[in-house]
Amino acid sequence: MLPLPGEPAPLPPAPVSAHRQVLIAYDRLAEVHRPDIWITLRSYEDVLVDAKAVDDRVRAGESLPLAGMLVAVKDNVDVAGLPTTAGCPGYSYTPEASAPAVARLVDAGAVVLGKTNLDQFATGLAGTRTPHGPVACADDPTRVSGGSSAGSAVAVALGLVDIAIGTDTAGSGRVPAAFNGIVGIKPTMGLVPKRGVVPAVRSCDCVTVFARSIVDGQRALAVMTGPDRSDPLSRAWPDYVRLAAGARPRIAVPDVAGLAPLTAEGRAAFARTVGDLLASGATVEPVDISPFLAAGRLLYGGAFVAERYAAIGEFLEGATEGVDPVVAKIVLAARELPAHRLAADQARLGELRLRAGEALAGFDALVLPTAPEHPTLAAVAADPAGVSARLGTYTTFANLLDMAAVAVPAGRADGGHFGVMVLARAFEDQIALDIAAFLAGEQLRTPCPATGIDLVVFGAHLRGQPLNHELSALGARFRGEVLTAERYRMVALPGSAPQPGIVRVPDGASLTGERWTLSPGALGRFLAQPRAPLTAGEIELDDGTTAIGFHCDPQAASSGPDITAFGDWRAYLRYLTATRPMVA
Amino acid sequence: MLPLPGEPAPLPPAPVSAHRQVLIAYDRLAEVHRPDIWITLRSYEDVLVDAKAVDDRVRAGESLPLAGMLVAVKDNVDVAGLPTTAGCPGYSYTPEASAPAVARLVDAGAVVLGKTNLDQFATGLAGTRTPHGPVACADDPTRVSGGSSAGSAVAVALGLVDIAIGTDTAGSGRVPAAFNGIVGIKPTMGLVPKRGVVPAVRSCDCVTVFARSIVDGQRALAVMTGPDRSDPLSRAWPDYVRLAAGARPRIAVPDVAGLAPLTAEGRAAFARTVGDLLASGATVEPVDISPFLAAGRLLYGGAFVAERYAAIGEFLEGATEGVDPVVAKIVLAARELPAHRLAADQARLGELRLRAGEALAGFDALVLPTAPEHPTLAAVAADPAGVSARLGTYTTFANLLDMAAVAVPAGRADGGHFGVMVLARAFEDQIALDIAAFLAGEQLRTPCPATGIDLVVFGAHLRGQPLNHELSALGARFRGEVLTAERYRMVALPGSAPQPGIVRVPDGASLTGERWTLSPGALGRFLAQPRAPLTAGEIELDDGTTAIGFHCDPQAASSGPDITAFGDWRAYLRYLTATRPMVA
Repeated sequence: MLPLPGEPAPLPPAPVSAHRQVLIAYDRLAEVHRPDIWITLRSYEDVLVDAKAVDDRVRAGESLPLAGMLVAVKDNVDVAGLPTTAGCPGYSYTPEASAPAVARLVDAGAVVLGKTNLDQFATGLAGTRTPHGPVACADDPTRVSGGSSAGSAVAVALGLVDIAIGTDTAGSGRVPAAFNGIVGIKPTMGLVPKRGVVPAVRSCDCVTVFARSIVDGQRALAVMTGPDRSDPLSRAWPDYVRLAAGARPRIAVPDVAGLAPLTAEGRAAFARTVGDLLASGATVEPVDISPFLAAGRLLYGGAFVAERYAAIGEFLEGATEGVDPVVAKIVLAARELPAHRLAADQARLGELRLRAGEALAGFDALVLPTAPEHPTLAAVAADPAGVSARLGTYTTFANLLDMAAVAVPAGRADGGHFGVMVLARAFEDQIALDIAAFLAGEQLRTPCPATGIDLVVFGAHLRGQPLNHELSALGARFRGEVLTAERYRMVALPGSAPQPGIVRVPDGASLTGERWTLSPGALGRFLAQPRAPLTAGEIELDDGTTAIGFHCDPQAASSGPDITAFGDWRAYLRYLTATRPMVA
Repeated sequence: MLPLPGEPAPLPPAPVSAHRQVLIAYDRLAEVHRPDIWITLRSYEDVLVDAKAVDDRVRAGESLPLAGMLVAVKDNVDVAGLPTTAGCPGYSYTPEASAPAVARLVDAGAVVLGKTNLDQFATGLAGTRTPHGPVACADDPTRVSGGSSAGSAVAVALGLVDIAIGTDTAGSGRVPAAFNGIVGIKPTMGLVPKRGVVPAVRSCDCVTVFARSIVDGQRALAVMTGPDRSDPLSRAWPDYVRLAAGARPRIAVPDVAGLAPLTAEGRAAFARTVGDLLASGATVEPVDISPFLAAGRLLYGGAFVAERYAAIGEFLEGATEGVDPVVAKIVLAARELPAHRLAADQARLGELRLRAGEALAGFDALVLPTAPEHPTLAAVAADPAGVSARLGTYTTFANLLDMAAVAVPAGRADGGHFGVMVLARAFEDQIALDIAAFLAGEQLRTPCPATGIDLVVFGAHLRGQPLNHELSALGARFRGEVLTAERYRMVALPGSAPQPGIVRVPDGASLTGERWTLSPGALGRFLAQPRAPLTAGEIELDDGTTAIGFHCDPQAASSGPDITAFGDWRAYLRYLTATRPMVA
């Protein structure tokens, strides 16, 4: 399942002209007339200056992966020279430097249009707790946009920008994706630095990306990830990372009790997603998600909310103007929580991590509804606390349990949007992205982590061949077929397990193989296996590059028939099958 | 520096008879008459039953790495069937299962003699806050043993047991090592599970080992480390680990301000250690240790102490009998700390980790005094709080900053013991052990982590050769010289950078090479480098085992002179030098 490219391809070409993209965007801004999206919208002139700079860099020959992409930034993330308000005018400050998450996008050619409206201090999931006015859904003025990254999600959904930066502590980067029919990617915490972000619950905050496709989102994410030496919570990719699930992913979904918060239409919509997964060849199994939900309840039902007080309590104690009373109440109530209760909750979270890990053992991912309902603005106004608490049912645990999550649209229910979310273990972001891309009907070409090493295989490690499981078990990622340079011979090595031997010769043929990418730790484990008479070294490919692959000792190769003319081990196997005498 | 074995050797043979060891130990117990060491000393008969079981297993052919080693266990660590009191009789419970740290020792053939006296609830660094009476230093009845692992350290120092289990939150596994002239190893937190241990400050607790030699301690540690699926704070070795510092380690020591807490004699003793390090060829540089000391002050000067209340506050609220008043005061005072202050301290600790990391950038280890002074029992009685606070000056930060530490004796000062401590980054335990072993005059033969993969090299990667830096940079560990099986030829490959090519032949010679161990991630990175015409595969060694090494493409090898007769690349290089015409 999870269709992958026949061969690796470069990133899609960037838009030709940033200048032109900006013209289109400002026309569109006027057309949609949604001032509720923005807290600071930059002037047309200022943005054009940035666009011109990008176009100049491209003309000068710079390769900018995001050239001309337009970006909106949630107003709790610093953009140099623009005020950061976190939705509270009295809190406003104007940073000299952009957050690394923003600076990396800009370095890669993106242009920032402005800062977006949010639930104040990122405290809320509906998109309504803001003195700048509640943000409505992109295509339904009666329903909420979701929050707290409300404006960012709507700006993307309305096509005003290509990507938007959000933040996600309890679901703020995913719920608004679900309610506006777009993609929300919440990477493993720490992969994107959170320096320059106003803290919410600092240990659970995460910078996120909204986009209309996973391809676009992943493209931005590839630029944004990477260690930041000034961010204590920044994390690098570990040396061992699974870069792909196996050919048939095992996916956990909630059992009947876990789906109880959904309406009948919500359950039907979720059942369609399960059907899609099954049709793709994945194994889908219901699990008890209560340890996940219990972890989620610790965020606001426990003492973790004291982190909010540590971040902005002092400001709120002295401020009243422009402060949302619900936000202030939540944060100031945390003043009285005792430290030993936070310590106890942290210990309890550790136990729940173990239980959640056990529930997911053997699974590649957990697929859940993103939110149980898509409420109307009126429903939220009538019962703000109740609705907000329900909206986080499926999202609140992800950062507490250190998981990666990708939210994608999944149709409609009860007149609103319905979305689903793919969750994977920390650092297995690519696995979540792959499954989410399948659900979104997309094909991903470039894996996310930059630390992979390419290996080419020609025989028993090919897909469908007897040793391919060694690659899957190490989380290797299939990248497509490759051809070698015309400098190789292939022989069929004798022995009970048939395998080819590849020998480099001055004047040989081009052979067909497969390219796989492994993390460094996985490659080390793979190459430490005994393989005589094979040894690992550079294989020259027909495009002039090289990758690691197995060579055969020429002495050993001399004992087997030359099958170079087949050009491909599988072709030789088909020939063998076709010519082999029938066995009873 | 750091002398290493000429070739890898098996562990030293275990004592012949556990039974005999027990007889000797009980004679020695009677001779030293130190009842203050023990809270529960097992009966001679019970221990003999265990010893017989070990001897039976050895006779049955089991290979037990710790057969017959005698162990004492700090009384805050569970041993099945013996009461765990944490030094508070009212807290006593009798566990059915041993802590994994203990169970793994026993599985490996160790025999537990009993449970040792400690500062109650592991709260103290002098070894005096216990209703079982203060523990005096092993060889000086006027001075303290150090704590909180008081009895464990003294039992080892007096030769009653071979190793003892301690715990270390703020220095309890290192200060008593310093004050009794023995070795205290505090591994990276989480490598040894802490299930079955009474929590002190849970996020900073660590199980430790006392021994009279680093070899013995490391032997025990090798058995004790490993993930525990029931312990939320258990950690596995990551895929990339530096297994050794380079040939000339860079060692940080405190600057003048950092040594101010020492007396003149203490400074002189520390200067001797610095002199030893310099004489070994290490680079030693003073650094500003204030970020480390500031982190340490957070443990008791901040809100982390609320973790103590979370662990035993409820018990202490109701208990008075047998409770040490100082311990109760410390823990109960933490009841009133607000959660937002703990959250703020955790954030502040993150910042200090960055600053400490910057201070150590480029260094392999930090060497510090273990404690600033070795106080008398009278001095502690006169000013318990003041002395205890001073004793932790150099030790308190290690777990907060996630470092490994090894304490070793370093002579005497002011009539008491003086010790030094080698600290290394998380998971670089082996580097700390190597430097500590050098200071203790020991040679370590077997590296600690079990995840290394062996590589053999024959040419430019040998020690002192031009590409050896590639191995050092990856933290590879030199394991000694090896000989191949008699199946190889060696040629001198042409080219500007001379290197040998090794070719497997049916009837060849035995070649001399070097064995290096790398972590899987390091091996993956190493083998991903282009090396044509060399490829990596199994090399057969003269002992019948194999290791990964480079083979040369026979076609490429045919272009160079056969130098097999030299048997060793370095011998060929010496020949070249001797016969080369002198160049101006």
